Amino acid sequence: MRTLTAADLSLNTATVSKQWSLEECIEGCKRHGIGGISPWRDKLQECGVDRAARLIREAGLGVSGLCRGGWYTAEGALTQKVIDDNKRAVDEAAAIGAETLVMVVGGLPQGSKDLVSAREVVTEGLAKTLDYARTQGVKVGIEPLHPMYAADRACVNTTGQALDICDRLGDGIGVALDVYHIWWDPEIAAQIKRAGKERIHAFHVCDWMNPTQDLLTDRGMMGEGVIDIPTFRQMVEAEGFDGLVEVEIFSAENWWKKPADDVLAAMVKALPAI
Amino acid sequence: MRTLTAADLSLNTATVSKQWSLEECIEGCKRHGIGGISPWRDKLQECGVDRAARLIREAGLGVSGLCRGGWYTAEGALTQKVIDDNKRAVDEAAAIGAETLVMVVGGLPQGSKDLVSAREVVTEGLAKTLDYARTQGVKVGIEPLHPMYAADRACVNTTGQALDICDRLGDGIGVALDVYHIWWDPEIAAQIKRAGKERIHAFHVCDWMNPTQDLLTDRGMMGEGVIDIPTFRQMVEAEGFDGLVEVEIFSAENWWKKPADDVLAAMVKALPAI
Repeated sequence: MRTLTAADLSLNTATVSKQWSLEECIEGCKRHGIGGISPWRDKLQECGVDRAARLIREAGLGVSGLCRGGWYTAEGALTQKVIDDNKRAVDEAAAIGAETLVMVVGGLPQGSKDLVSAREVVTEGLAKTLDYARTQGVKVGIEPLHPMYAADRACVNTTGQALDICDRLGDGIGVALDVYHIWWDPEIAAQIKRAGKERIHAFHVCDWMNPTQDLLTDRGMMGEGVIDIPTFRQMVEAEGFDGLVEVEIFSAENWWKKPADDVLAAMVKALPAI
Repeated sequence: MRTLTAADLSLNTATVSKQWSLEECIEGCKRHGIGGISPWRDKLQECGVDRAARLIREAGLGVSGLCRGGWYTAEGALTQKVIDDNKRAVDEAAAIGAETLVMVVGGLPQGSKDLVSAREVVTEGLAKTLDYARTQGVKVGIEPLHPMYAADRACVNTTGQALDICDRLGDGIGVALDVYHIWWDPEIAAQIKRAGKERIHAFHVCDWMNPTQDLLTDRGMMGEGVIDIPTFRQMVEAEGFDGLVEVEIFSAENWWKKPADDVLAAMVKALPAI
């Protein structure tokens, strides 16, 4: 396994979403020696895509991803509006040179209980986005989300399921693996092997608090919780993954309330727990 | 599919755990025409096991399960205390003629991040309980719990994983399937087929609220949420399951606050949603 330094980390802007703009995130990364960034689209658009691309480039930061495309089930059946929004996401990912466009695929359509159909809509949507992404040289990374988000955020809930979709769709699509979403999966070791280097587009870390107070916003800093993060890093690095380790923490009651510089310092301090 | 009536339902005592004793649950089932009961051990012991067995028999109720054995990781490595407690659970299941002893297997030991080892401890514990259960004519039903409980309640989180354990351990052990825990699983249709009639020991229903406010105690009455319950019932009945449909609802802010008779009436009213 690599010996990680701050330069190997990437700041997902969600980690300090309540504190900082994208500009401030870029400056913060420089100050703390953090090597990369992964913007959410709202922060990116706020900053302006071209300006953000320039600022990131000038700061010498890597871009481990753009969060997020997907949400294919937002309007029930796949609509042109949703397809177009994903095209814009591809364009934005290309503009900032993101390693992958991270896909949170969407949950059940409003009023629906049909998870099987939702998954078909998602696959259809991913196929369309992928067609366009290939023309722009952008990779598409499906993020399997924890099963507790199947209804409201993403109906792709295991790495195996995501890779089945990748198998169907071919080149240019892989997975964005977040330890928070995959740590419980009895099949995960085999599925990470199955993914292989080419299809592991991103590796996200945070921690699972025990107990967890909120389904969405009670994630911990690495080392605060119960996930054996080094074992997962070992698994992805055994496949050849050598990209930035992206830190994405949703934490309404703790990390979002602290000064952002303290959060970035804590990320660097948490390196031994990764 | 069967046409369900109240007589096909079983009341898991957790559904009215804040309102009623076991005696009151038995009386309530009779009043509402509900055909079965599934006690939690605390209620059973409060009532007295022999007395409970007599009251249930006299009321003519079926016993769809006893909740719960398991929790093998409670003391880290498997201890005699844990093994003995599970033996007592087997004895209690035998005394009340439960269809199965439902196993909530336990999560990560205190201070541990080693899910793989926890799963080995659980398998070892299940093997010991099963040895004893066979001598008492009691069936052991592993309840795979939703992945969001991997840390604190049960590290068996998919039906496939539970069946892998059953394959290792042989006769007399199967699964207790609760739609709340399994509805998100992309493999569920195949795994229910794989289980087959002999290994489907119990079928539990409630509903997944969207959004969900609490990881443990925000479960809904059938029809209130997003689970396509009839499709799951169809799957288990296609395998030959013809047992009681057990209603188990943890609901701190809603159903636990209502008069228990209203809850039982709502269960019966919810039959079309099952």
